[in-house]
Amino acid sequence: MNIGIVGLGLMGGSIAMALKEKHTVFAYDRSPENSQYGLDHLLINEVCPDVARLGEKADIVYLCLYPEAISPFIKSNQKYFHPNTILIDISGTKSRLVSDLSPLIRDDLDLIFTHPIAGKEKTGVRFADKQIFTNQNYVIVPTPKNQSDHLSLVEQLALDMGFKTISYLSADEHDEIIAFTSQLCHVLALALMEAAPKKYPLKKFVGDSFRDLTRVALINTPLWQELFLDNKANLINQIDTLVNALEKYRKAIKNHDRVKLVDMMEKAKYLRLQMEKEVTR
Amino acid sequence: MNIGIVGLGLMGGSIAMALKEKHTVFAYDRSPENSQYGLDHLLINEVCPDVARLGEKADIVYLCLYPEAISPFIKSNQKYFHPNTILIDISGTKSRLVSDLSPLIRDDLDLIFTHPIAGKEKTGVRFADKQIFTNQNYVIVPTPKNQSDHLSLVEQLALDMGFKTISYLSADEHDEIIAFTSQLCHVLALALMEAAPKKYPLKKFVGDSFRDLTRVALINTPLWQELFLDNKANLINQIDTLVNALEKYRKAIKNHDRVKLVDMMEKAKYLRLQMEKEVTR
Repeated sequence: MNIGIVGLGLMGGSIAMALKEKHTVFAYDRSPENSQYGLDHLLINEVCPDVARLGEKADIVYLCLYPEAISPFIKSNQKYFHPNTILIDISGTKSRLVSDLSPLIRDDLDLIFTHPIAGKEKTGVRFADKQIFTNQNYVIVPTPKNQSDHLSLVEQLALDMGFKTISYLSADEHDEIIAFTSQLCHVLALALMEAAPKKYPLKKFVGDSFRDLTRVALINTPLWQELFLDNKANLINQIDTLVNALEKYRKAIKNHDRVKLVDMMEKAKYLRLQMEKEVTR
Repeated sequence: MNIGIVGLGLMGGSIAMALKEKHTVFAYDRSPENSQYGLDHLLINEVCPDVARLGEKADIVYLCLYPEAISPFIKSNQKYFHPNTILIDISGTKSRLVSDLSPLIRDDLDLIFTHPIAGKEKTGVRFADKQIFTNQNYVIVPTPKNQSDHLSLVEQLALDMGFKTISYLSADEHDEIIAFTSQLCHVLALALMEAAPKKYPLKKFVGDSFRDLTRVALINTPLWQELFLDNKANLINQIDTLVNALEKYRKAIKNHDRVKLVDMMEKAKYLRLQMEKEVTR
């Protein structure tokens, strides 16, 4: 199939790289250097100088843009896509996007909201790597307008990329659980760096636990501030839930309540073990 | 040299494995199966059936016991060590241990407090792996009684094991910074599991950020509850500092304060980048 990529950054580049094995990949990026890099490094088959050219060639288009750029992009550019083009959103939040975009989108285009739960603490096409998708989770947030054969196709493409598990959620469900598994983890890594004692050279006193917990503090700020704000209500709830859990540990430790502490630790370990068992990587 | 290991678990086994290349390693464990495993898998040169035999053979003894077991062990068993034996503590907390043990220890033994900042989310000698030490941090907490040539020897042994950076701290300094870089990270991983929404099958909606943040929730509960309680005051302070940092993020997100949010994110990222730059792994 002819696959289009709009926005050739870390995600767009990685999707291109993953799909190019079986498909023909066309890319448009507002920065010509990114597209040229993609061509030079065999991530894509053809650079499109504008959206018109991409719209002409592609049957399925991945919109690899920051969440706040998607509605403006659709408004200005949907005229360039031929009828029956499948447009695939890959943003990390959904509720606002679905409600903003559903009334906008042309009736003869099928816009499918998805979330490939994968990434890297690096920014830009130079770090594109199809391995980031291997055995990972993919979520589809269907709308009533989506055609079922198109949804099946999007599933197949996710499997082609290497994803292992594909789930369907409503936009609200997606944003609730992802606020916890994704956005909260990033806030936490950042907050840990903020909380670091300034009087010690941190690097001399950290182990792998601290390195792992703060890896995602090497953040793409422009992207993630949008995701945090876009999913504000859920994220605030999850911060509150985490703070409550921390306060429970604080209390058990302060009271030297060994029984309570051990009980909480064993329950948390059990939950993590359950998760581990069913995830292969 | 003749190295003794008291307690052949994950840490004792890994130290044995790392030092056996250059030294002769004797081990005592109250469970004969652990020692036998060590012998069968070439982690050690000789099993000692009791501490008396270990004390006879070893010049340097690593005490690979849980923190609360160390004082009782020293009280009951220090009579078995020959004069000038170097005993090396490897616990993850220091202040209480130093004050409990300093008055107890025989004058002709040199007890050196150290913290190899390394480990694994696994328990027991079967998971022993000398690689866990490669390029990691090692802290020595010297006491006025320690002989400088013995401290140099302990440094050399840490380098032999693969550690990269060796630092000296007072017991109070150690416990303050380690409460942050180690114990807080473990509480956090546990609290995250505690906070997980129960209505979704977590495994389908997590990515690497969540997996990395909660890896250490696969915890050795008996060990870590001791470490948490042993370093109670510092750990509570660090939980409070982290909660404050989370509240700052919560506030900026709630107020949709993009300028503040981006500023905090960039500062956190900068700190993490600085740490990354100076740590090779």
